[in-house]
Amino acid sequence: MKTIGYAAAQAGALLKPYAFERRALRANDVAMEILYCGVCHSDLHMARNDWGNSVYPLVPGHEIVGRVVEVGGDVTRYKPGDAVAIGCMVDSCQECDQCHHGEEQFCREGLTPTYGGHDRVTRDITQGGYSKFVVAREAFVLRVPDGLDLARAAPLLCAGITTYSPLRAWNVGPGSRVGVIGLGGLGHMAVKLAVGLDARVTVIGRSAAKTEDARTLGADAYLVSTDRKAMKRASSSFDLIIDTVPARHDLSVYTPLLDINGSLVVVGQIGQVEALNTLPLVFGRRRVAGSLIGGIRETQELLDFCARKNILPECETIRMDQINEAFERMERADVRYRFVIDMASLTETDGR
Amino acid sequence: MKTIGYAAAQAGALLKPYAFERRALRANDVAMEILYCGVCHSDLHMARNDWGNSVYPLVPGHEIVGRVVEVGGDVTRYKPGDAVAIGCMVDSCQECDQCHHGEEQFCREGLTPTYGGHDRVTRDITQGGYSKFVVAREAFVLRVPDGLDLARAAPLLCAGITTYSPLRAWNVGPGSRVGVIGLGGLGHMAVKLAVGLDARVTVIGRSAAKTEDARTLGADAYLVSTDRKAMKRASSSFDLIIDTVPARHDLSVYTPLLDINGSLVVVGQIGQVEALNTLPLVFGRRRVAGSLIGGIRETQELLDFCARKNILPECETIRMDQINEAFERMERADVRYRFVIDMASLTETDGR
Repeated sequence: MKTIGYAAAQAGALLKPYAFERRALRANDVAMEILYCGVCHSDLHMARNDWGNSVYPLVPGHEIVGRVVEVGGDVTRYKPGDAVAIGCMVDSCQECDQCHHGEEQFCREGLTPTYGGHDRVTRDITQGGYSKFVVAREAFVLRVPDGLDLARAAPLLCAGITTYSPLRAWNVGPGSRVGVIGLGGLGHMAVKLAVGLDARVTVIGRSAAKTEDARTLGADAYLVSTDRKAMKRASSSFDLIIDTVPARHDLSVYTPLLDINGSLVVVGQIGQVEALNTLPLVFGRRRVAGSLIGGIRETQELLDFCARKNILPECETIRMDQINEAFERMERADVRYRFVIDMASLTETDGR
Repeated sequence: MKTIGYAAAQAGALLKPYAFERRALRANDVAMEILYCGVCHSDLHMARNDWGNSVYPLVPGHEIVGRVVEVGGDVTRYKPGDAVAIGCMVDSCQECDQCHHGEEQFCREGLTPTYGGHDRVTRDITQGGYSKFVVAREAFVLRVPDGLDLARAAPLLCAGITTYSPLRAWNVGPGSRVGVIGLGGLGHMAVKLAVGLDARVTVIGRSAAKTEDARTLGADAYLVSTDRKAMKRASSSFDLIIDTVPARHDLSVYTPLLDINGSLVVVGQIGQVEALNTLPLVFGRRRVAGSLIGGIRETQELLDFCARKNILPECETIRMDQINEAFERMERADVRYRFVIDMASLTETDGR
């Protein structure tokens, strides 16, 4: 299946139109026309080879929403016209303990990422959602429930599930005291989802600048991490803190905010954080953890939850040809809170 | 009540005989003659004011075993002659949520440490178990069950409960895969207790030197942390790792050894550890936590468990006047695995 997309030809190159082939449908495959694709910070990292594992040309995008156009012979759950979505992974072994209990993101053989990975059958490089069409295994295709605005649903597939999964894994519910560090693409979803789960939500930021934004998103309180008195008053007051900061930082500023047995879950920074002070951990059985997207079942649960609760990301819709500018703006955190590409803006002539 | 003990007169001073008064019995107090007292690394830290909060003269010791000599009018559980014990704390508020569910170590008002703290009634400085007699509130006095060797039970009160509590909090049982980093006072108890709980236990050390020691203590395997191939093979193979290393070190060497959802629990180092790599945490929902001794109910459970399973620390018994030499040897890790002072060696004339 021919398609067009936007690709980086090499590390750091601007994204440009790129015509390429999607695989012919296998029996358990679904082909979809992409209507919207969210722009995740990791798209920028991968385009630039920041993590050293990028292969070019590289078509980013793993927050994909669209409609089924064709299905393989063994596909039972989808038919042409269905509203569907694809997130950060498109395959896994489906046989290990992790896959069996619905945590494909921790597959023992490794998940197959939506772009920049190797197809499990052909070993071809997978390509992402900054494109017109995509083909993926049915088991990794989500249903977009009726009532969820297709134009705004895309960021749920990465920013949404990345923050929803720890909220669920740590049993957040009515009355849970949840802190959210950072108010970008991930952070704003963490706030909305925790509020949706009836938690009491506090946004934690370095300045008071985002106080009103936090309130608008539904947060109950705002805590300025550079205000020592306020931080002292807030000690031992959170059951769970979701840390969305995507850079090296000092977790020990935040761990004293956790109550006894509380957990700080890192979802932003993958790599080094500053030297850790174990004292707040020891004196309170506090924990620091990490979390990676979520499984397919949980991602479907998230989409259904958001449709039911009418929870949607705050999106700024862009045209495909604005992607390089969007990357620049994303780098300086100049977006509230997620760019979403309207794929109708990508015309057939772009690829020629 | 007059007693004698060994005290540091000032930071870093050698411990010397010291005569002092224990408080007159309150209605809910138990007075005990101390028969044995374990020597914990924190005794040395406190004698030297390593943590900046020591008050002198300072009588260390919080692994205390002895017999009741007198009880206050409201004491119901103990009578003279009973074999009893005191650990790291001698009081707490008894009214907060933590005290109510048996986690006095996390009392909202702060636990009262066995030495170097302030009595909750008089605000006098508490003094520890390197002494002939001690007086403590009944609620913080443990029963030494029949069959538990008094001469070897003392280290259970700190080294024992410090390692037992995380084993219980993380639900270690038959088949659990437990790693123990470091094989000193804490580490050797972690091994014995995890073996007693029917876990599969691996000692993790920097060289192969302690392989046989680990086997003798009951460990199933030994892993050399500087052997990169062995470490690679052992990745994702532990449910729980108890980290007893009492110095700054790099946790990220060990976190990849945890299986999905596994936890590394720090019980040795209180303070900074090296910059943490969040990658193993994120890619496996792994956790780093801390744990502090255990509650009174759990400490009693430990003593009963050890009596039932015949689990005892490996002790080297010393005389009270050998304490300064023991401190020196403990500093160079020259003890297998815990010094215990035979308090019969402390004679009345010492205090004059």
